[in-house]
Parts: sequence; structure tokens; C-alpha cells
Amino acid sequence: MTLALDTAAQDLLFREARTANTFTDEPVSDEQVQAIYDLVKFGPTAFNQQPLRIVLVRSDEGRERLLKHMAEGNRAKTATAPLVAILAQDNEFHEELPSQLPHFPQAKDMFFSERPVREASATLNGALQAGYFIIGVRAAGLAAGPMTGFDAAGLNKEFFGDGEHSVLAVVNIGKPGESAWFDRSPRLAYDQVVTTV
Amino acid sequence: MTLALDTAAQDLLFREARTANTFTDEPVSDEQVQAIYDLVKFGPTAFNQQPLRIVLVRSDEGRERLLKHMAEGNRAKTATAPLVAILAQDNEFHEELPSQLPHFPQAKDMFFSERPVREASATLNGALQAGYFIIGVRAAGLAAGPMTGFDAAGLNKEFFGDGEHSVLAVVNIGKPGESAWFDRSPRLAYDQVVTTV
Repeated sequence: MTLALDTAAQDLLFREARTANTFTDEPVSDEQVQAIYDLVKFGPTAFNQQPLRIVLVRSDEGRERLLKHMAEGNRAKTATAPLVAILAQDNEFHEELPSQLPHFPQAKDMFFSERPVREASATLNGALQAGYFIIGVRAAGLAAGPMTGFDAAGLNKEFFGDGEHSVLAVVNIGKPGESAWFDRSPRLAYDQVVTTV
Repeated sequence: MTLALDTAAQDLLFREARTANTFTDEPVSDEQVQAIYDLVKFGPTAFNQQPLRIVLVRSDEGRERLLKHMAEGNRAKTATAPLVAILAQDNEFHEELPSQLPHFPQAKDMFFSERPVREASATLNGALQAGYFIIGVRAAGLAAGPMTGFDAAGLNKEFFGDGEHSVLAVVNIGKPGESAWFDRSPRLAYDQVVTTV
């Protein structure tokens, strides 16, 4: 019993969870997304920055606007997923640091006054938050289908248009449908990944 | 009951888990790290790429080599944590794609022949994997103390030196000690993060 997390939870989040490519019609409610957010918002980031922004695509018009920027191989599943979430980083996240890091409000100006520095930080920490979000989708008993095959510049302009946001991933969300996944691909062995000094 | 994950697991991974700044002397074994890896290796990435590399710092000499590159405010806790893990991205991860993505081995050359493209992909997906790793540390009943305050160029050279790796974060790992954390800082409200189209 090396892990404290119970086996059912391990399976739900990692061992049996898979990236879904087909979905049932069962809708994903705003209440479910709120419950996911209210769980994963506690995941740690540097300076408690919270660059992740989430656009839920619910309308037919929104779906059309999204689909035209997706890679062809991702279009059919993105068209039929019950819910699609666009995950982006807000490159102006530092504006919120004084309220989100009340014991060290000067972090905003000390560390993040330069756009390239805060953009790199938003990428790293936004991706960490995206990882927590994917785990949260699975915690809700749903399958996630994260994708990076899209025209990023096109999506940024289409859904933000302010030059201040960069899309990280697009995630299909729902209950897995028929033939929802391929066989699982291999993973690197521990010794290929972990070394000790 | 909006989430499928049981409340104890929610608390262990997100609600009660905190970034620790002090630790007890209780060691963290290789078996624990192996169990963490064997769980979180299943977290999804683009093209099943696995850029994350982990250096466990166990020797006194390794700790000294690490400490000199850490920001001053991170040095004391990094010196005393039972285990420190350096998380880095391998920018040559594409070499493993033919074995890790057997149904689409041509992805290596189709998408990742250019270093800047694969470096950006390794950052995004390495950070996703870092997020899964932090969740895995918590799943083991341990506290994680992830840090980004260090001389990245110095660490890259010190521990890799091949120009092919970029450090993402350094993570202190152990059982939380006395006064292990500050009060929890606020999180953005759902409506500040999530919009619907």
C-alpha cells in the first residue's frame, strides 16, 4: 500500500481514464463544470498565479467558430462532443496578483513587469492548471479529449482578439461513446525518466 | 454528488493538500517515487509524448550542486526537504515517438523536426506531466513544494549540460513539518475564469 489514494480513485483519474474520441449524447452541465473548477482551482502554481481561462462552447454558432480552426482530424469529434472547453492562458494574469497573493503584492512588479517573462510563466503555470483541469474532468466521472491540433493564431483571434490570451489546448468533454479510444500506447519505463544524483 | 471522486480523495489531492515549506525527517523512498510515477505516467499528452525527466537529489553532493542555483528564499527549505526532485523537459523527446506512438510513428518527422516547435511542445506537455506528478505526490500522502525560483540556465548546465533539457520546476517532497504553510491565498471565482459562447 504505497499510495494513500484509494485504488478506485487511482483508476478513475489515471489507470482506467482514457482520452475519448467519441461521446454519448449525455449533456455536461454548468454545475458539473463549476464543481470541477471549485476542486481544481486549489492546484498549486508559482506565486498563486491563475492564468488559466476557460471558454465553454455551447452554442451552435460558437461550435462553428471553433471548428473552422481545428485540424481536420480533430473536427468530427469536436463537432459531436457534448461540451468543448477552450483552455487559454491570460498573459496579463499579473494584474490579479495583488488580490491573489495578498502577503506579497509587490510580486506583480518585481517579477512580471516584462511581457515575455510573464508570458513564459503563464504558459508553464497555465499548463499546470490545464493538467489539474483534465484530472478534474475525470474526477467528475467524465472523459476528457484534450487536443493541440488547431490553428492557434486563428483561435486566439477568434475567441479573444485582444492579443492578451494564448490558447493552450481544446478539450472535448463527455461520457465516452462507442469505440471511444485506441489501444493504450506504451509509457516510458521508470529508469528512462528518473535518475538519481 | 456532482463529482464521482470521493470526498476523501478530493481533500487529499486538492482541498486539504498544501504547498509545504517545512518537512519532517521522515524519508521518501525510491519505492514511493516509483509508485507515483507508475500512476501518473498515464496522464494524457499530445501524441503520447513524454518529455518529463526527473532527477532525484539524494546525495549531499547533489544537494550542494542544486542549492547554489536556487533563489535565496528557497534555499533553506530545499536544503532540509527529505527529497528534492528536479523536473525538466527533454527537448529531444521526439526520438521516442516511434516507440511511444506505434500507430503513428511518422509524427516524429511530420510535426517535430524543428527544434523550436518541439521545445514549445515539450514545455506545454512537460508542464502537464509536472502537474500530474504533483498530484501523484499528494496521492502518495506526501506534501509537494514546487518552486520556480532558481537560475534556470545554471541548473540546466549543472544537471544536464547537453543543451537538450530545460528545467521546469524543482519540487520539495516529504511529510509536512511544523508551520508548514501560510494561510491559503484566494482563488479566482468561477465567473472570472469561465465564460460561455
